[in-house]
Amino acid sequence: AQLVETMLLNILNFESLIATRAARIKQVAGNSSLSDFGLRRAQGFGGILATRAAAAGGFETTSNVYGAALYDLPVAGTMAHSFVQSYDDELEAFRAFAAVRPHDCIFLVDTYNTLKSGIPNAITVAKEMEAKGYKAKGIRLDSGDLAYLSRAARQMLDAAGLHYLKIAASNQLDEFVIKSLQEQRAPIDIFGVGTNLVTGKPDAALDGVYKLTMAEGRPRLKLSESLEKTILPGVKQVYRVLDDKGMFFDADAVLLAGEDPPAGTIFHPYDATKFIDVGKLRQEPLLQKVMSGGKRVLPRTSLKQIAGYAGKRLALLPAEYKRFENPHVYK
Amino acid sequence: AQLVETMLLNILNFESLIATRAARIKQVAGNSSLSDFGLRRAQGFGGILATRAAAAGGFETTSNVYGAALYDLPVAGTMAHSFVQSYDDELEAFRAFAAVRPHDCIFLVDTYNTLKSGIPNAITVAKEMEAKGYKAKGIRLDSGDLAYLSRAARQMLDAAGLHYLKIAASNQLDEFVIKSLQEQRAPIDIFGVGTNLVTGKPDAALDGVYKLTMAEGRPRLKLSESLEKTILPGVKQVYRVLDDKGMFFDADAVLLAGEDPPAGTIFHPYDATKFIDVGKLRQEPLLQKVMSGGKRVLPRTSLKQIAGYAGKRLALLPAEYKRFENPHVYK
Repeated sequence: AQLVETMLLNILNFESLIATRAARIKQVAGNSSLSDFGLRRAQGFGGILATRAAAAGGFETTSNVYGAALYDLPVAGTMAHSFVQSYDDELEAFRAFAAVRPHDCIFLVDTYNTLKSGIPNAITVAKEMEAKGYKAKGIRLDSGDLAYLSRAARQMLDAAGLHYLKIAASNQLDEFVIKSLQEQRAPIDIFGVGTNLVTGKPDAALDGVYKLTMAEGRPRLKLSESLEKTILPGVKQVYRVLDDKGMFFDADAVLLAGEDPPAGTIFHPYDATKFIDVGKLRQEPLLQKVMSGGKRVLPRTSLKQIAGYAGKRLALLPAEYKRFENPHVYK
Repeated sequence: AQLVETMLLNILNFESLIATRAARIKQVAGNSSLSDFGLRRAQGFGGILATRAAAAGGFETTSNVYGAALYDLPVAGTMAHSFVQSYDDELEAFRAFAAVRPHDCIFLVDTYNTLKSGIPNAITVAKEMEAKGYKAKGIRLDSGDLAYLSRAARQMLDAAGLHYLKIAASNQLDEFVIKSLQEQRAPIDIFGVGTNLVTGKPDAALDGVYKLTMAEGRPRLKLSESLEKTILPGVKQVYRVLDDKGMFFDADAVLLAGEDPPAGTIFHPYDATKFIDVGKLRQEPLLQKVMSGGKRVLPRTSLKQIAGYAGKRLALLPAEYKRFENPHVYK
């Protein structure tokens, strides 16, 4: 365990952090789709893990082409300003892109002037594509006031009969900006989230640690001046308590493995004034053995299954634990 | 360039961020040595790049064993609490470690009780090592008040005649905590820095971007509503201005490649009220071609050379740009 400790912590800390961030963003995204745009701000190949974790938390697409291939995710948002600039004019650039990607063409419209050049050129090329039997997928806004510009863009596209063109937006997005855009009813169909997703900033790390609690058949302890950092020795099982509607009920119970599930009162480990009676509530064990003797003992789960499970479980967590301002703390 | 853009940005953004953080920590570390402890909080294999960047910024050792092997760095800080706990008592654990690492043995002394158990046991084993002709390297503190404990530890070690034992400290360190410990004259010889080094939190990302300014022999431009985000087109050279003592002089000049170095006044690009006359000052070009036709055109530099160069250049940057509170901004 000591040999693999650092590797395990690295994977669990980082992917949990990013999946959590992704789930927070998903929570406010409504019906809009989410795309991971973070590779250029990630830590080397850590960006590939970020793509995986973002998908686990509810993101649907990625601009990370290698990650998309690896995890069977759709690619999105790959047209750069430099692509547009590499042509002598924007219209020519859009036409060239449409010619090679006729089925999933999203035009980046803010290289020169979003409303006066980018969107009119996108409309021109989308109409030319229609004449050839293709449908452009959308436009992307990457600067300016996204609420204002998305509304103006939607009007211009609709006036041109291009109701099916989607509006994507990016530029320093996070769950707070997206929540605000949704509250303003900005007609944005796809959010591309980069830096704030893959770095997990401002936290930037989930401080998970590894503690030895059993070795050679004997329980082990680490002491600390702070009660919270003193280890509970022995091999444990964790029981999640569910209320009568099947929702998570405020506290997990930690017991020694092999003990019966709690049939009465459970106590807060650091605050003796806090306890609840869970005897009549349903409980389910959370810990499963996943490896034994160096071999996986459970079947491999696909990223899609992981994302589905995470979404299903998060739906069981009451809203007061998930709100952004002063959330309840799960005990 | 568009194909490698993301990869280049990923490497340059991340390693620059971490090397800068490392250099800020180095700046306040005085004669103490610095060790990278960050792998478990990094992004997958991105932690290997963090080890490299930390060394470029002035760190001397790492607990990342793979990174140490890859970049020829000394390993440090590898005894974990779990190692101590895996033995039936602390003394036995220290003896076992000393037996296999007699030349670079640092005892982690806070698993049970730093002053009453850890340090006394470390002293016992260090004395036993002396009897066999070995010298323990030091002790490590990983919790509690590091200023108080390091002073108490120094007294206990010195009283036992173990003046040569070094004191290492870790636990959520950053440049601010280390500066405070130095101001308190805490007798700490080695600082181990983890999370705050490898994540670069709270920034967590250096927002470097790639912009196309030349393609097929023609200058290229991207417009923006914000003047700061509008690109200066064309291939450039950057001149650093040096004062008469050879120190960096407040501003770099950006010119088109091929233009003569500035012989008179240079202007702030976004604030016409700001300009300086650099005509009489020494200037040196900063940009060098490193690849041509897909091949490296400069010799490979070792990590030691990179760290040496970074240190030498940072010494030329006046202190007012490097202070933590309200630093001057280099123009």
